[in-house]
Amino acid sequence: MSRNIKLTIEYDGTAFNGWQVQPNNQRTVQGIIEKAVQKIFNKKIRVIGSGRTDSGVHALGQVANFKVKSDLPLIKIRGALNANLPVDVVILKVEEVPLDFHARYSVKAKTYRYTVLYRKTRCARQRHFCLLYPYPLNLSHMRQEAKILVGRHDFKSFQAVDAAKPKRGENTVRTIKRLEIKKKGDYIYIDIEANGFLYKMVRNIVGTLLEIGTRKLPKGSMKNILSKKDRTAAGPTAKSHGLALVEVKY
Amino acid sequence: MSRNIKLTIEYDGTAFNGWQVQPNNQRTVQGIIEKAVQKIFNKKIRVIGSGRTDSGVHALGQVANFKVKSDLPLIKIRGALNANLPVDVVILKVEEVPLDFHARYSVKAKTYRYTVLYRKTRCARQRHFCLLYPYPLNLSHMRQEAKILVGRHDFKSFQAVDAAKPKRGENTVRTIKRLEIKKKGDYIYIDIEANGFLYKMVRNIVGTLLEIGTRKLPKGSMKNILSKKDRTAAGPTAKSHGLALVEVKY
Repeated sequence: MSRNIKLTIEYDGTAFNGWQVQPNNQRTVQGIIEKAVQKIFNKKIRVIGSGRTDSGVHALGQVANFKVKSDLPLIKIRGALNANLPVDVVILKVEEVPLDFHARYSVKAKTYRYTVLYRKTRCARQRHFCLLYPYPLNLSHMRQEAKILVGRHDFKSFQAVDAAKPKRGENTVRTIKRLEIKKKGDYIYIDIEANGFLYKMVRNIVGTLLEIGTRKLPKGSMKNILSKKDRTAAGPTAKSHGLALVEVKY
Repeated sequence: MSRNIKLTIEYDGTAFNGWQVQPNNQRTVQGIIEKAVQKIFNKKIRVIGSGRTDSGVHALGQVANFKVKSDLPLIKIRGALNANLPVDVVILKVEEVPLDFHARYSVKAKTYRYTVLYRKTRCARQRHFCLLYPYPLNLSHMRQEAKILVGRHDFKSFQAVDAAKPKRGENTVRTIKRLEIKKKGDYIYIDIEANGFLYKMVRNIVGTLLEIGTRKLPKGSMKNILSKKDRTAAGPTAKSHGLALVEVKY
């Protein structure tokens, strides 16, 4: 009988061309996990992720699933996978889930964290995991404008330009449940939880919030940007290496 | 007139053969900073560190000083140094200090942090910055035994074996001002502040504390180990990549 296996995955995205399998044998997280799965079960099996992450984006709790006919105990599957995976990706949890569980379609909410190093000098020790921002930021201003985004909205203004010609009628409405901006020492953490994200939505929101924080964009900008439903109204896309997928809820 | 320049330095120790200049042109932090200093001031100048750190050990606030005849503003020295340093080392602060300031001899206290990842699966994202420890640890037991080390003691039992034949009469007495064991999520942080450290002392203390935590060493061991003044009485040396020099006080 087929079992449906759910994986919780941590990875350092620095040396990956993102999550999704790419042509030309590029190094991707999905590709590397599928290779490990194939080695263990002696069969090519598709591993479905909760969604793709871009080159350089990290994960503390990416989720994926695959179906397999095997009665290998879960703890052995985890051990065997980790033994066949490189140092920059690790399977934290292996669970058996109902057959109708689908890592992408069953998602209820996702949380991303964007990490900003807020100081004058670049980062040596955590350079792959944060964006340096050396310009003065008004955090209370950022927090106020961020509130506008919480709730159910059409986030078309924050959808990637390279997805600017979406399929006709594509739904760009999402619900942001939580958007918090915290400061700890030299670090600023921007945590966003939503029922789903458009392509590059987090990085476009962060880029916009940083421009608001430096007052390149005036007070009240966020409401205006959101209502325009036009990518050119928002700020730039923040670099990928500051971003991490923290959790996927089902 | 000569000025005495104090540097506060952060580095990712992963790709360095430690702090100290080595023969055969090995890549060391001191060597790389001296090269940058030479490029800026057009002169070979010795850069004195607060002490060496081993291969793989990181620093959030290593301190060094050098003397130079130049009236280049401090902020320009910082900018020029950082422009000439690789991505894994950065000068956080440049200050002018009295001519008698010596980065090593003037030290009043140093703080090190050792980071343990306390879970079953290895670390992908922070693998260069923590030691995986998958065995059950009794933290309250560790904290109790750690208290024995606080204060002024002869730490000969925790001095590196390869320094086992110290110069006759070498002083192995040090004062540990603070030794804290904190747990945050899956991480355990062991913070040690002392007026000075013997070679590999922090890593030998951490290795011993971990053996105490798993009860490989019985209750009351620490007192016994300390009084023996013999390296073989203590636990193993914890690996270097979990260690970071946090702060040097003057």
